[in-house]
Amino acid sequence: MTYFRDNIEAMRGYVPGEQPQGGKFIKLNTNENPYPAPDAVRRAIEARVAQGLAKYPDPSATAFRLRAAELLGVEPDWIVCGNGSDDVLTVLTRAFVGEGQRLRTPTPSYIFYRTLAEIQGAACEEIRFNDDWSLSDEFITNTDGLRLAFLPNPNSPSGTCLSPQRVLELAEALPCPLVVDEAYADFAETNCIDLVRRCEKVIVTRSLSKSYALAGLRFGFAVAQPHIAAGLMKVKDPCNCDALAIAAATAAIDDEAWLAETRGKIITSRARLTAAMRTLGFAVVDSQANFVWNVHAELPVRPMFEELRRQRVLVRYMDYAGWGDGLRISVGTDEQLDVCLDLIKKLV
Amino acid sequence: MTYFRDNIEAMRGYVPGEQPQGGKFIKLNTNENPYPAPDAVRRAIEARVAQGLAKYPDPSATAFRLRAAELLGVEPDWIVCGNGSDDVLTVLTRAFVGEGQRLRTPTPSYIFYRTLAEIQGAACEEIRFNDDWSLSDEFITNTDGLRLAFLPNPNSPSGTCLSPQRVLELAEALPCPLVVDEAYADFAETNCIDLVRRCEKVIVTRSLSKSYALAGLRFGFAVAQPHIAAGLMKVKDPCNCDALAIAAATAAIDDEAWLAETRGKIITSRARLTAAMRTLGFAVVDSQANFVWNVHAELPVRPMFEELRRQRVLVRYMDYAGWGDGLRISVGTDEQLDVCLDLIKKLV
Repeated sequence: MTYFRDNIEAMRGYVPGEQPQGGKFIKLNTNENPYPAPDAVRRAIEARVAQGLAKYPDPSATAFRLRAAELLGVEPDWIVCGNGSDDVLTVLTRAFVGEGQRLRTPTPSYIFYRTLAEIQGAACEEIRFNDDWSLSDEFITNTDGLRLAFLPNPNSPSGTCLSPQRVLELAEALPCPLVVDEAYADFAETNCIDLVRRCEKVIVTRSLSKSYALAGLRFGFAVAQPHIAAGLMKVKDPCNCDALAIAAATAAIDDEAWLAETRGKIITSRARLTAAMRTLGFAVVDSQANFVWNVHAELPVRPMFEELRRQRVLVRYMDYAGWGDGLRISVGTDEQLDVCLDLIKKLV
Repeated sequence: MTYFRDNIEAMRGYVPGEQPQGGKFIKLNTNENPYPAPDAVRRAIEARVAQGLAKYPDPSATAFRLRAAELLGVEPDWIVCGNGSDDVLTVLTRAFVGEGQRLRTPTPSYIFYRTLAEIQGAACEEIRFNDDWSLSDEFITNTDGLRLAFLPNPNSPSGTCLSPQRVLELAEALPCPLVVDEAYADFAETNCIDLVRRCEKVIVTRSLSKSYALAGLRFGFAVAQPHIAAGLMKVKDPCNCDALAIAAATAAIDDEAWLAETRGKIITSRARLTAAMRTLGFAVVDSQANFVWNVHAELPVRPMFEELRRQRVLVRYMDYAGWGDGLRISVGTDEQLDVCLDLIKKLV
């Protein structure tokens, strides 16, 4: 017999992108930043360690919220911090979606949303993106029991964005909160922070993993109207952000020059990668994230992924039912991308 | 209107012990270790920072599990790590207890269990400890929908332990898993790790917050039979432990001499605190944790708590419905306890 809930027993569990702990790989599979975090992060961590770690951290991560609020033009009580944005997504799901209720997400997109629905014992309604990665009004259908919608913007694997105008239209029409997952928004031309003020149903989530090169540290946050944020605070674990993560994240967002410079380098390399993959015969949609989605009309891409892996270059092979497969390649340094491109050249 | 689930809307949210971020307090309210973590922790963190934080951490926290498995005499796949043991307790609740089902806990004990039930939309059945802090067979009644039981051992606020024999009896009789929350077990004479092998329903949780002086870092873990651990891995966030916490926790448990020495000092101070409080007229049950529960038959203790706070000494005032109130005082250094005792002397 099992003691687990039926929905837990039935689910397979989310499989994250491969994180080899040893060996030398060029890692272009999980959208990490190829540049190290600003040095201020190291200094902030060392200073915080020197104060001792015996005491519980600030449950509200006040230091981070004060600085982030300034930078984003909101008040601190609009911000809820989490142990990575996955923690924030988990809290959102637990706060809004009960057993037997429904969560909506576009597809192809971030597959962790489905896992969150499964853990909650809820249904996950996947609405197919149009072929041009726009999203039809099917996304705003009022289904019985629909309690939350997730919209990654920029989306993964495509790197495409819906415009803030379109996001606002969707949010206003939906019967439930719309979480705009902006894990990659620092690489995009627009974002939806301003919509939070205009519509209480818009909740924006952000991550420091990608744009701030802090995936190893786990820090993300939500921006929501204060009555929504207060409800989320009840659901998160009381001390979900550790003292080092709070100190490091605060130092990271404070270094705006570092972000501007790193963002610039990644956007330049992204254009170069996009052009090169097109030259090699791939269909590549313009990305606003730090990765590029590559589809090939004629050649199977799975063997390419496997050969790259044998050559110690990790990219992400994705195969979406009813959509097709492709390679999602993170924007590494130009040197890393050259190694990857040279290998792909031999395979096409 | 609200978008939150009814159970979330209705709940008040867990209020953790006060964590003043500024000012000079003697903090004896949240059972932190008064001694700094071993220096190996600082070195491990600095070495890990030097490797860079841009990449995701190991989702399985393998390094920690290997070392902890050796120390505990289990296999690594018996261990599931979490972002503090609160995260582990959250994962356990989500894994086993569905909406409308039941979770059981003794009372007075850790009030966060009730919050976890509330978030899950489940009922929390509180079974009263006997006056001598033993637990009657009411705890093993087979109620409809009972899916999980939590037993803090040592318990808070009492610091008392049930014997491993009694815990095994309870586990074998219960229709559901029994989580033995051993956040304070490093200060006790016995623990229940060996029971995990003997009964698949026993799941032991541990924290590095108290005995290893790492509350600021957030690291805890569960020990369970491997088929149980595998189910829990599906429910936890994929990268719930950050790279610095994994490195620091691994270094901390490796320093057995530090633990033995710190444990010894705390146990000595605990005896001293217990004796002094008894001299001052308090009823104090012998504690196996790093805190002491103080009840006074004649004097109200709430004003003492308030006066201590005014004097910048924080202890925990607890008032349990149907049981009564008291002061839970963490075992600080002898110097901290002297300040606290001198103040209390003037109030009795």
